[in-house]
Amino acid sequence: MKVYFDNAATSPVAPEVFEEMIPFLRDHFGNPNSQHSHGRENRSAIEKARKLVAQKLGAQTNEIFFTSGGTESDNTAILGAVKAFGLKHIITSPLEHHAVLHTVEHLAKEGLVTLHLLKVDQQGNIDFTHLEELLEAHGAESLVTLMHGNNEIGNLLDLEAVGELAHQYGARFHTDAVQTVGHYPFNLSETKVDFLAASAHKFNGPKGIGILYVAKENKIGPFIHGGGQERGMRGGTENVASIVGMAKALEIAHDRMEADIAHGKSIKSYLKESLEAKLNEVQFNGRSGDLEASLYGVLNVSLPSSKDAGMLLFSLDLKGISASGGSACSSGALTGSHVLTGIKADENRPSVRFSFGRYNTKEEVDYVVEQLLAIL
Amino acid sequence: MKVYFDNAATSPVAPEVFEEMIPFLRDHFGNPNSQHSHGRENRSAIEKARKLVAQKLGAQTNEIFFTSGGTESDNTAILGAVKAFGLKHIITSPLEHHAVLHTVEHLAKEGLVTLHLLKVDQQGNIDFTHLEELLEAHGAESLVTLMHGNNEIGNLLDLEAVGELAHQYGARFHTDAVQTVGHYPFNLSETKVDFLAASAHKFNGPKGIGILYVAKENKIGPFIHGGGQERGMRGGTENVASIVGMAKALEIAHDRMEADIAHGKSIKSYLKESLEAKLNEVQFNGRSGDLEASLYGVLNVSLPSSKDAGMLLFSLDLKGISASGGSACSSGALTGSHVLTGIKADENRPSVRFSFGRYNTKEEVDYVVEQLLAIL
Ligand SMILES: Cc1ncc(COP(=O)(O)O)c(C=O)c1O
Ligand SMILES: Cc1ncc(COP(=O)(O)O)c(C=O)c1O
Repeated sequence: MKVYFDNAATSPVAPEVFEEMIPFLRDHFGNPNSQHSHGRENRSAIEKARKLVAQKLGAQTNEIFFTSGGTESDNTAILGAVKAFGLKHIITSPLEHHAVLHTVEHLAKEGLVTLHLLKVDQQGNIDFTHLEELLEAHGAESLVTLMHGNNEIGNLLDLEAVGELAHQYGARFHTDAVQTVGHYPFNLSETKVDFLAASAHKFNGPKGIGILYVAKENKIGPFIHGGGQERGMRGGTENVASIVGMAKALEIAHDRMEADIAHGKSIKSYLKESLEAKLNEVQFNGRSGDLEASLYGVLNVSLPSSKDAGMLLFSLDLKGISASGGSACSSGALTGSHVLTGIKADENRPSVRFSFGRYNTKEEVDYVVEQLLAIL
Repeated sequence: MKVYFDNAATSPVAPEVFEEMIPFLRDHFGNPNSQHSHGRENRSAIEKARKLVAQKLGAQTNEIFFTSGGTESDNTAILGAVKAFGLKHIITSPLEHHAVLHTVEHLAKEGLVTLHLLKVDQQGNIDFTHLEELLEAHGAESLVTLMHGNNEIGNLLDLEAVGELAHQYGARFHTDAVQTVGHYPFNLSETKVDFLAASAHKFNGPKGIGILYVAKENKIGPFIHGGGQERGMRGGTENVASIVGMAKALEIAHDRMEADIAHGKSIKSYLKESLEAKLNEVQFNGRSGDLEASLYGVLNVSLPSSKDAGMLLFSLDLKGISASGGSACSSGALTGSHVLTGIKADENRPSVRFSFGRYNTKEEVDYVVEQLLAIL
């Protein structure tokens, strides 16, 4: 049996998405910036996709930009905001994805900003009092960047609350929503988020294509300079097929969101309960054990064994089970996770992140639990 | 009849390329950074692609990086070189693509560099004496960035000569080879190029994927910060399907390069001769009329009529003919071309860029010439 329990790293492309992309990889090949018929058909495909994405996220079409992925969206928003508004402070947390952490660390190293890392507790909750203190001190000169759903421990952030607080002090708010767009409903026009990043391959779309939302009152400059595509916000010939595929993936995700959420929750509780029933001392990192407070697709399991996590993942892999020790985006599970370190997770307990999606089944859970028990 | 004579804007995906991409859009969906079997199969596909690209370009595998396109490659190389080596001067020409021009203008505006625009003559030849003067003055503190093949007028640059001169004065040399990679042979290990940018969609590969070559003695930092992918040179989950497709496109291009060049040249001379035979006063912008000094795929035609170029393109489009007035990457033909302005082309003569590729035929040329005559 082969079980893919690593959907937070990347997810299979939905068959309908692939179908939607085919014509744009085969027949409709024009450059969307060309004025002739070959170009115009692709221009209209892109603008149709933009409209659809905007609708699904409750945004306006002129607030949606297409990028090469979540990482580029994060870079564009953060650098763009710092430059456009002359921001001097960045308030973030040690649990962010490297797409954010490495970007803000780079800006700090360049002397452009001062970095403020929020205190977090052992559950991965950020310290709101600390956030407010920092906002009081740096207010309108600062960018708050906090992720919506943590890719390792699943913790969900209250976007409304953080946005409200940030705006109260005149700060801008960016959120990395790579783990939540396509998985949860959004209504950006009624949320105090200034910038948001998303990535298609996390919601059964293709890799290498992402969304950047920029609330219309925030005018920032491009990150990639070039031919003025994306209304001057991103140079480079548009990846038409992937844009169309991403829009389709988001459409499907929203059409079946209620069912997917229910399915995800049932898989997650089933896995959690099976582990609790069969393994003494099993624990769950962050808030991932809490169905409502964390991503329905992520369960980060802290195991009693003394075997190290690398060996455990290796053994699971031999049994056909794909799971991870942390973020795939860091250079591999074996180098440790800055998130688990950040919440001071017990280093003697190996941790495995199981993450599932719409195509996973309870039979797969049974198999995984069985194999895990056999290995331990 | 539908004729696509705009291959310099973008080219149709080769059927074999599309075939090669399918499994990676459908079945092999793992994150190449994951340690498990789903990830490893994609990691090895990427590294196989890198090896192939390196071989075809005469480079080493550790000199090849994958990006989201030519524009990102240009941005990465230019910004990376300026930062890594503390360069203070950029020597370029007014005829570069906006992916280069807008990037260096941005750096100049930020106060990071001083910009030096080389003199060019009415044929679009750069002034080598001027280049040498600037190199004498700024030598090791400068980056020379000059394109290999001009996308509008087709002029080819002598990479060896420019690289030799730049290195003689301790300068670094970047070239935008977006119009030539996949169309001409390269042996980068024996060419004094430090950085080179290429883009798959210009050689019958998919859009949204590019190559950045960084000669091994040049250590630069990432442009997009994130999870340490591409050996720390580019954050973001890799676009596996497109990387594999691009490598296939480059392989095919090299396998049939001799034939494609011969075919391109025959189409180009046939079009040129037909126009000369049937139209008084036809001229060719830049050096595009010279088969050896310009891209075999580009003929930039300056027409005697007083009709403006926009109307002419519009009329051609109505006849099913896709051609362009300049770069598609600028916001459309109708806003004028900085390249034609740069070479002081006669504004009263409308200019049309015809650009062809391996799938075009002489019958198409006949149709285009016939329709063009009817319109004029
Ligand atoms: C010479 C040249 N450089 C750069 C680019 C940009 O490449 P891309 O569209 O892949 O970003 C193009 C065409 O778009 C080009 O013709
Ligand atoms: C939370 C989070 N942010 C950003 C990213 C980066 O997205 P991408 O790989 O599309 O660049 C990822 C995953 O890779 C992620 O999980």
